[in-house]
Amino acid sequence: MQAILLAVGDELTSGQTVDTNSGYLAMQLAQLGIATVEHRTVRDNLATLTGAITEAAARAELVLVTGGLGPTADDLTRQALADAMGDRLVLHEPSLREIEAFFRRRGREMKVANNVQAMLPASAEPLVNPIGTAPGIAAELAGAKVFCMPGVPREMQKMFAEQIQPRLPAGTGRIVFAQMHIAGMGESDVGTAIADLMHREGDLLVGTTASGGMVSIRVTARGQDERAARAAARKVLDEISGRLGPAVVGEDDCKLPQAVANLLIEKGQTLATAESCSGGLIAKVLTDTAGASDYFRGSIVAYHNEIKQKLLGVDTETLEQNGAVSEPVALQMADGAREALGVDWAISVTGIAGPAGGSEQKPVGTVWIGLAGPDGTSAWRHQLPGDRGHVRLRTLMAALSRLRNALLGIEA
Amino acid sequence: MQAILLAVGDELTSGQTVDTNSGYLAMQLAQLGIATVEHRTVRDNLATLTGAITEAAARAELVLVTGGLGPTADDLTRQALADAMGDRLVLHEPSLREIEAFFRRRGREMKVANNVQAMLPASAEPLVNPIGTAPGIAAELAGAKVFCMPGVPREMQKMFAEQIQPRLPAGTGRIVFAQMHIAGMGESDVGTAIADLMHREGDLLVGTTASGGMVSIRVTARGQDERAARAAARKVLDEISGRLGPAVVGEDDCKLPQAVANLLIEKGQTLATAESCSGGLIAKVLTDTAGASDYFRGSIVAYHNEIKQKLLGVDTETLEQNGAVSEPVALQMADGAREALGVDWAISVTGIAGPAGGSEQKPVGTVWIGLAGPDGTSAWRHQLPGDRGHVRLRTLMAALSRLRNALLGIEA
Repeated sequence: MQAILLAVGDELTSGQTVDTNSGYLAMQLAQLGIATVEHRTVRDNLATLTGAITEAAARAELVLVTGGLGPTADDLTRQALADAMGDRLVLHEPSLREIEAFFRRRGREMKVANNVQAMLPASAEPLVNPIGTAPGIAAELAGAKVFCMPGVPREMQKMFAEQIQPRLPAGTGRIVFAQMHIAGMGESDVGTAIADLMHREGDLLVGTTASGGMVSIRVTARGQDERAARAAARKVLDEISGRLGPAVVGEDDCKLPQAVANLLIEKGQTLATAESCSGGLIAKVLTDTAGASDYFRGSIVAYHNEIKQKLLGVDTETLEQNGAVSEPVALQMADGAREALGVDWAISVTGIAGPAGGSEQKPVGTVWIGLAGPDGTSAWRHQLPGDRGHVRLRTLMAALSRLRNALLGIEA
Repeated sequence: MQAILLAVGDELTSGQTVDTNSGYLAMQLAQLGIATVEHRTVRDNLATLTGAITEAAARAELVLVTGGLGPTADDLTRQALADAMGDRLVLHEPSLREIEAFFRRRGREMKVANNVQAMLPASAEPLVNPIGTAPGIAAELAGAKVFCMPGVPREMQKMFAEQIQPRLPAGTGRIVFAQMHIAGMGESDVGTAIADLMHREGDLLVGTTASGGMVSIRVTARGQDERAARAAARKVLDEISGRLGPAVVGEDDCKLPQAVANLLIEKGQTLATAESCSGGLIAKVLTDTAGASDYFRGSIVAYHNEIKQKLLGVDTETLEQNGAVSEPVALQMADGAREALGVDWAISVTGIAGPAGGSEQKPVGTVWIGLAGPDGTSAWRHQLPGDRGHVRLRTLMAALSRLRNALLGIEA
């Protein structure tokens, strides 16, 4: 079974909003053995949307549509599906009552506009949406199954899991995805090291991607069942791991932050950060994942120099003589955080994220990263490319990479 | 002129990576008066990619392809374009020398694999990539202009701005986008209030979107020139603003964080945060934008209770009697941060982001937000829906919304 995903909305085609629904659905489908062959994003235009639904249903056995089920006049998925099916829209009374109940539960007044959300093609079935006002739609078109879901990710995800997934046939075989994340190597170095393992066709696909300053290797394996697929993926991952050694940071969700977290938990050690130009980014990323309290104690975001002095004990003379973006300040910040927060390891960051603030000697992208640990304190100067967002992202990666090396006892 | 955007890569169709390039390009094209009618994402498969390029060139005058220009065997855009053009691939010597120079500048050894990046269809032109190894390609196919760019966003953006944009014809007229961000109203409430202003066709499009706990109104206006387009957008935005009053947070890039920043800068006041479950997220978001140093001093991320006591002066008895997620702790954290960081305003956050840590009395999603300011200190209990990421995102929005109300003197 192959699937095409349609995302609907002017805010998507115009680029004002990024579509994250299609990626989510593709991942879910793969786990059911259903390959997504295409994503397509179309405008809030009745003829275009009707054409896209018709074409997708002709080309794939499964079509998942997200968006265009809201209460406003630019929400056209209901009408487009009806037109594609040669069907008329009818009011579905039980859905209307559910929408009314939804508003009652929230203590909000239901607007007349919301009535339209209870309409659906006469021969289609509604899908309950317990956490929003837009019911979904299940229909058949040209032998394909078509499901329409709200564009709000949380509502879409719940509807897919509870209402759509149970209606999908089990695919033949299962597909599993795996990723391996690499630090300290460029994409072509990785590609050269594993050239003979890169497969583009068949039941085992191996490719590389570079993003956010890291290279990842993607493995897609198909097998008779999940066990067989996992074994095929495992075999190639083990081979890659043997070749790349400590450059392999982790697999799947274990990117650099999780790899560092695992090492600290394993050693029973604690971490804090002292952040200037990164403004709390490192702390934020470390606490994105539940369980951070097992090793992460906190952070002092010293965006203003006075805070560096008052809370991190950076001394005035050092600041005046070297400037805030300097080795001695990075060292004092790391030591200060290690002491103030009572931890085994403290990362410090002081730099110029830009776009303003650069000079000839310290251009935008100059970042000092300090690390205080049980064996002493060090600092490294990095010159990072890109705009403010990139400099901050690469600062995060560089800081965590320094800490990982220290935890593994790797010289770098 | 109409454009179709093609994004290439298994990591995109399978959902392992989200395509942000298409959105970026759509925004850039709109500013040139070129409407993007579709985004399409296809796999690393030669036949599929060749078909997609052929079809897009038949349907639109401009086709922008991103991805598939890397050095590895799964990078097929060069070959697909040559096949679609009925052309053969040839080695472009000057491009090869540029790739060699790129590696020399970085002090890295060039791999044989990178040679393939200097290949292009015989009748096409290369586009220089000064910050990466993959040159782009400019070609003509069935009367359409086709441009292929690397998938790495930074390289793509630079290549588009410097090499492709100058080759595009000025469109007839200009399109401008505007967004207006609304706080404290649901999407259907907004839709009802502006129902008569919602246009789906023609030179003025008005629609709504809900995401990340906020509703935004999107306005797309086309005019003879940019001035005319801006005036048409302005007219409808002013009408909406008059109807929705203080619920209008700001326009375009001025979402809640920027709105709060502007108010603080205007008043010459300073801000700090004391964050527990949000783990630095608020500080991170406030410092995403350059210029934060004009009002933002820093943050104490007190993830561990000891840090709340030691750095924020929360007293042991209060913690023991009420638990960390409680009104008195939120109040003390806000007061402590205001004092320790020497600011006019301090936001505090203490809550249960989940998935673990909830109880019957304090389920996951219970968040206390405190605010200490020149006129005293208050705290509010929020019960936020969704998973860890959503709870943290809604905490951010709720905290900034509380501060905005206080700065505007709005009772809430």
